[in-house]
Amino acid sequence: MGAVRRIALDAMGGDFAPHNEVKGAVAASRLFKGSTPVEIVFIGREAEIRASLKDVDTSGMRYSIAHADDVVTMDDEPSSVIKKKRQSSLYIGVDLHKKGEVEGFVSAGNTGAVMSTATLLLGRIKGVSRPTIGAFFPTEKTGIPTLVLDVGANVDSKPRHLYEFGVMGSIYSSHIIGNENPRVGLLNVGEEEVKGTEVVQQAHELLKNSGLNFIGNVEGRDIFKGSADVVVCDGFIGNIVLKFGESMLGFLKSKIKSYSERGIAQKLSVGAIAPTLKKVLKDIDYQEYGGVPLLGVNGVVIIGHGSSSPMAIQNMLLRAVEVVEKNVNNHIEAALNSPSTP
Amino acid sequence: MGAVRRIALDAMGGDFAPHNEVKGAVAASRLFKGSTPVEIVFIGREAEIRASLKDVDTSGMRYSIAHADDVVTMDDEPSSVIKKKRQSSLYIGVDLHKKGEVEGFVSAGNTGAVMSTATLLLGRIKGVSRPTIGAFFPTEKTGIPTLVLDVGANVDSKPRHLYEFGVMGSIYSSHIIGNENPRVGLLNVGEEEVKGTEVVQQAHELLKNSGLNFIGNVEGRDIFKGSADVVVCDGFIGNIVLKFGESMLGFLKSKIKSYSERGIAQKLSVGAIAPTLKKVLKDIDYQEYGGVPLLGVNGVVIIGHGSSSPMAIQNMLLRAVEVVEKNVNNHIEAALNSPSTP
Repeated sequence: MGAVRRIALDAMGGDFAPHNEVKGAVAASRLFKGSTPVEIVFIGREAEIRASLKDVDTSGMRYSIAHADDVVTMDDEPSSVIKKKRQSSLYIGVDLHKKGEVEGFVSAGNTGAVMSTATLLLGRIKGVSRPTIGAFFPTEKTGIPTLVLDVGANVDSKPRHLYEFGVMGSIYSSHIIGNENPRVGLLNVGEEEVKGTEVVQQAHELLKNSGLNFIGNVEGRDIFKGSADVVVCDGFIGNIVLKFGESMLGFLKSKIKSYSERGIAQKLSVGAIAPTLKKVLKDIDYQEYGGVPLLGVNGVVIIGHGSSSPMAIQNMLLRAVEVVEKNVNNHIEAALNSPSTP
Repeated sequence: MGAVRRIALDAMGGDFAPHNEVKGAVAASRLFKGSTPVEIVFIGREAEIRASLKDVDTSGMRYSIAHADDVVTMDDEPSSVIKKKRQSSLYIGVDLHKKGEVEGFVSAGNTGAVMSTATLLLGRIKGVSRPTIGAFFPTEKTGIPTLVLDVGANVDSKPRHLYEFGVMGSIYSSHIIGNENPRVGLLNVGEEEVKGTEVVQQAHELLKNSGLNFIGNVEGRDIFKGSADVVVCDGFIGNIVLKFGESMLGFLKSKIKSYSERGIAQKLSVGAIAPTLKKVLKDIDYQEYGGVPLLGVNGVVIIGHGSSSPMAIQNMLLRAVEVVEKNVNNHIEAALNSPSTP
């Protein structure tokens, strides 16, 4: 009774901060469904946040502002925040979470910096060797994205780390995405067990002998096919595949543009297909998924693209609340400390 | 005078063999431009090849047939060909090349099997630690694909191997694709030198200190952008990225299909855009590039997709002749045995 769930939002994180952050927060505030009301704590330069708030209708919205003088930019070294930018919205937001004043932290800022700062300040869930960032990839099955992890946090992962990514991804997929008994695949260059690097072959063993619904190796083509709900890989590969995939839309657009430049007929035909194509491609736009979880830290952290739209920010806030409500971290801790864990 | 350049074609390799092979060979025979005439040596089941030849106009074409009883399938273990399938078109074709009876070998068969058999029978060019398969990716720059290597031949590559891939890719890009002083990039998760795995960081050092036009690290998004002419990576990553990229067209088509199934209006609008879209996507279709080189073996081997079209087969044959004429292997040997090589 009277309890309020507070979620911190890095109001200075994205490329269009604080404007998109404020708009997204207002939209989210209309959509929170849990029995506990949610208060959004904007972290950042108060004057800028208040200016953005003037442009929106905040009636009925619970929010507060925690002022932060400084801003972490996309060029800042991830590990430097904790030493040099303690007055930044990023540091202050994560620190509020550490102190228990908020139950989650959402940022569209420098991904590496959020990860590094959150890991250092919040620590890891018991049993987790390395926190991981997952990313959702659209699939042929409309509305059912595949969670690929890790996508950039960890390179030179050990077999045990890959196994843990599988456990964390499976829990996220089942509790947040709603996949019952999620199919976990190991990203590899062939279906046979003996394929791939030594590390991957050892990870295969661990995953096979786990309680997970492990479907074996999956290949690059299986991501878009949606052959697995969770795809496990080292962050070096996941990050490259993610950035390659994200560049697909721009690539397609450039191809369409250069086709239209071949002549008047081509220009007209491209003009005619543009509206339909736009609708089709909307489903492919990674932006729509709005934020990815940093799993394994002792807290709830959702990270978004720098270019996050208000809708993406809205979805990140909804997601953060959901992760809190579904006790995702408790499930991870239980799974990684159970007697049946390899 | 009177000399003929003979190129062996695995007539049983592809999914539509020998039909597509024969059609592609006929088309290629009209296009050979060098001063030395080219004879295509079909390797495979003579009766089937002759049956296919009846459907085409072979007037003026130089060809012969070397009968092979057996066929390597896509399910055969790559390393087993040399032990168990010595009567296969694949083995016999590579063996003819080894014996000097043909100057090149072209196959749309089991990629791993071609690679394994060719490496074992032909051996490596002096100075090459590991042969590599490259693949061309379409880029935003129309007509200028990026060569990514390795894409599946080698996992757990050492820094030296990655450096060699860069040397071989650069030579291929300059002599065959025509890129002057090709830009060589190292696939990584960030631009900074300190990024990536230990192996990649060491490879960065080797590439930086080589005579190559090394532009530093490139990221997943740089492939479609065409930021580099040659992108170097371990085969584990290259293979995953290749298969992921190849699945893009199917994914797009499925998205368009599911959009059209939403209603009559959507169905009509998709019907209206289909012809234009088809033309736009043609430039994206990996198939169009027709074959990839197996670089570093002591011979000229061009490998194609199982689903190779006659046009792909034609391009593979033209490519094989070009690689012979341009002395690509001599250039590789010279580069990897020069005193300035790290």
